[in-house]
Amino acid sequence: MTADPAPPTRPVTLEDVAQVAGVSRATVSRVINGAQTVDAALRTAVEQAVAATGYVPNRAARSLVTRRADSIALVVSEREQRTVSEPFVGRMFTDPHFGRIVGGLLDVLRPAGIQLLLMLADDDASRSQLVSFLRQGHVDGVVLLSSHADDPLPELLTRTGLPTVLAGRPTRSAAPIAYVDVDQQAGARLAAEHLVGLGRRRIATLSGPLDMPAGQDRLNGFRTAMAALGDPDVVSVEGDFTQAGGAEAMKRLLAEHPGIDGVFIASDLMALGALPVLYREGRRVPEDVAVVGFDDSSAALACDPQLTTVRQPVEEMAAEMAGLLLRQLGEAGRSTPSAVFRPTLVLRHSA
Amino acid sequence: MTADPAPPTRPVTLEDVAQVAGVSRATVSRVINGAQTVDAALRTAVEQAVAATGYVPNRAARSLVTRRADSIALVVSEREQRTVSEPFVGRMFTDPHFGRIVGGLLDVLRPAGIQLLLMLADDDASRSQLVSFLRQGHVDGVVLLSSHADDPLPELLTRTGLPTVLAGRPTRSAAPIAYVDVDQQAGARLAAEHLVGLGRRRIATLSGPLDMPAGQDRLNGFRTAMAALGDPDVVSVEGDFTQAGGAEAMKRLLAEHPGIDGVFIASDLMALGALPVLYREGRRVPEDVAVVGFDDSSAALACDPQLTTVRQPVEEMAAEMAGLLLRQLGEAGRSTPSAVFRPTLVLRHSA
Repeated sequence: MTADPAPPTRPVTLEDVAQVAGVSRATVSRVINGAQTVDAALRTAVEQAVAATGYVPNRAARSLVTRRADSIALVVSEREQRTVSEPFVGRMFTDPHFGRIVGGLLDVLRPAGIQLLLMLADDDASRSQLVSFLRQGHVDGVVLLSSHADDPLPELLTRTGLPTVLAGRPTRSAAPIAYVDVDQQAGARLAAEHLVGLGRRRIATLSGPLDMPAGQDRLNGFRTAMAALGDPDVVSVEGDFTQAGGAEAMKRLLAEHPGIDGVFIASDLMALGALPVLYREGRRVPEDVAVVGFDDSSAALACDPQLTTVRQPVEEMAAEMAGLLLRQLGEAGRSTPSAVFRPTLVLRHSA
Repeated sequence: MTADPAPPTRPVTLEDVAQVAGVSRATVSRVINGAQTVDAALRTAVEQAVAATGYVPNRAARSLVTRRADSIALVVSEREQRTVSEPFVGRMFTDPHFGRIVGGLLDVLRPAGIQLLLMLADDDASRSQLVSFLRQGHVDGVVLLSSHADDPLPELLTRTGLPTVLAGRPTRSAAPIAYVDVDQQAGARLAAEHLVGLGRRRIATLSGPLDMPAGQDRLNGFRTAMAALGDPDVVSVEGDFTQAGGAEAMKRLLAEHPGIDGVFIASDLMALGALPVLYREGRRVPEDVAVVGFDDSSAALACDPQLTTVRQPVEEMAAEMAGLLLRQLGEAGRSTPSAVFRPTLVLRHSA
């Protein structure tokens, strides 16, 4: 056993560790912070000194004082799956939208020294386990990405008292939680005006799932705008915001309405699935059918030709979610307003 | 102020809460566990009683005793990006491989009452922040998904003393960490034998990135098998395991070798990008060019025609990662062997 060289009346400091290790304060700091360029022998000396002195790095010590975990959870909540969990996580991990949100959150949280934890919930048991974990002080706040109308999580999170921000307008407004969203209907209007402006006259839409606010809002916005532009009977086929679902919906649309010359597809990922269907059915894009997407995600660039699409500034929206949370953490009990961003049309080659 | 009705000499129990709330023990349990079907008035009574008694639910109490957080981190470690963080998280969230790993981990961890946390690291600062968080007892173990050869995280994690399992064979074998992988070379051999067995004679391959073990192993395995089958000079074009990269690699392959009649594409996601390129260049699949993928992920089913591919049992592999960790948690200091799974060929319509 190594005797504890630190006096018992004060906490062990970085200087104590440096003294025991026989190295500089800077070297101790670099080892503790995981720098790669420290000599192996020095590293070992520092690690032994940390163990001998019982030194607790600053962040942990600060956490003990502030009761902060210095972490934020991004909770992704999905409808319960009948089969194994793969379809849910499969959907999450094939939609570039999630990646953009994570990127935007990291841009704000990392410089603030806050760790981002991604957590998943899709049934009563996993929600219960999640809430139990959150109640134990492992995180300081929550960004909730919930995609279905009857999700109980917003209310469950409100009950924990943890600062929470919703990604997207909630379907039930019962829980008093701030949200960040894009003006979905204004975005759909941009698509309608562009297609009509191109002179297309037989325009249809592949919508998102109609039990999701984003699916509803984009379809309603598109219909309203088309009606104002003189076409009150726009054909729509419901999709599910996935690539495979986009292909399926386009097959149905072409089978029933082979004469279309313009389509608003409610997500870029669906467009990525729908374009090859148009080619295999002998349609050129944009010559025969003009296509406008929604999101301006990486899927828009993967499309051939690259997709003209409605951009929602997801990275900035996610940064705002992180900012709202940080402000709530800074002032306990502070109520923060929701934030609604403006969409823009990005012109590429599909329309 | 409500007086604390529990004697100071023992911890508050569920029964104490039930007595204060004037409800049954079962009702308290259901409220605490987040059940949705509890009457609002009862829920409020229980929540007030929990606050008044200072009751700590069992799991948290157990955590205090066992010093377990009842959580496992899945750490995704990527090479540092020159630009914003989006490309990294973009890649993570467009590759179905990640989703399958998460699904396989959840299948084991959820029934064990263990929360899965996804965490990301891609530069010195984020690795330092991650290691600092992990050292604070928020997780009991780590599954590390690292995709580049010079990643310092395996060694950093070893130094934390946390039980750790690698997803995939490590490139540097310095750190004594168990891993779970598929026999990559045997998988590539299955593809070679199938293409040759179909009578294809001008066979090429689109490889993964050659600084990743999976990229190297699949290319080496394919070349070795083709040489054994009489073709020592297989053409290869390097890809990056993404859909867009698959399209790009196929364009280069066709430009330089228009006469190919068979291709082994080292990931299904790359094949999903490569097939439309074949169509636009006038090739039918499988009539003109037979295509075999690797993974058997959801991308294989999204291909048109659906992809003949080498299946790696990712869900079972991920379940084994979780199982290895749980066994290490059960027996501190226990050394666990690595696990290598056998691939199989899944016949569909592309070859």
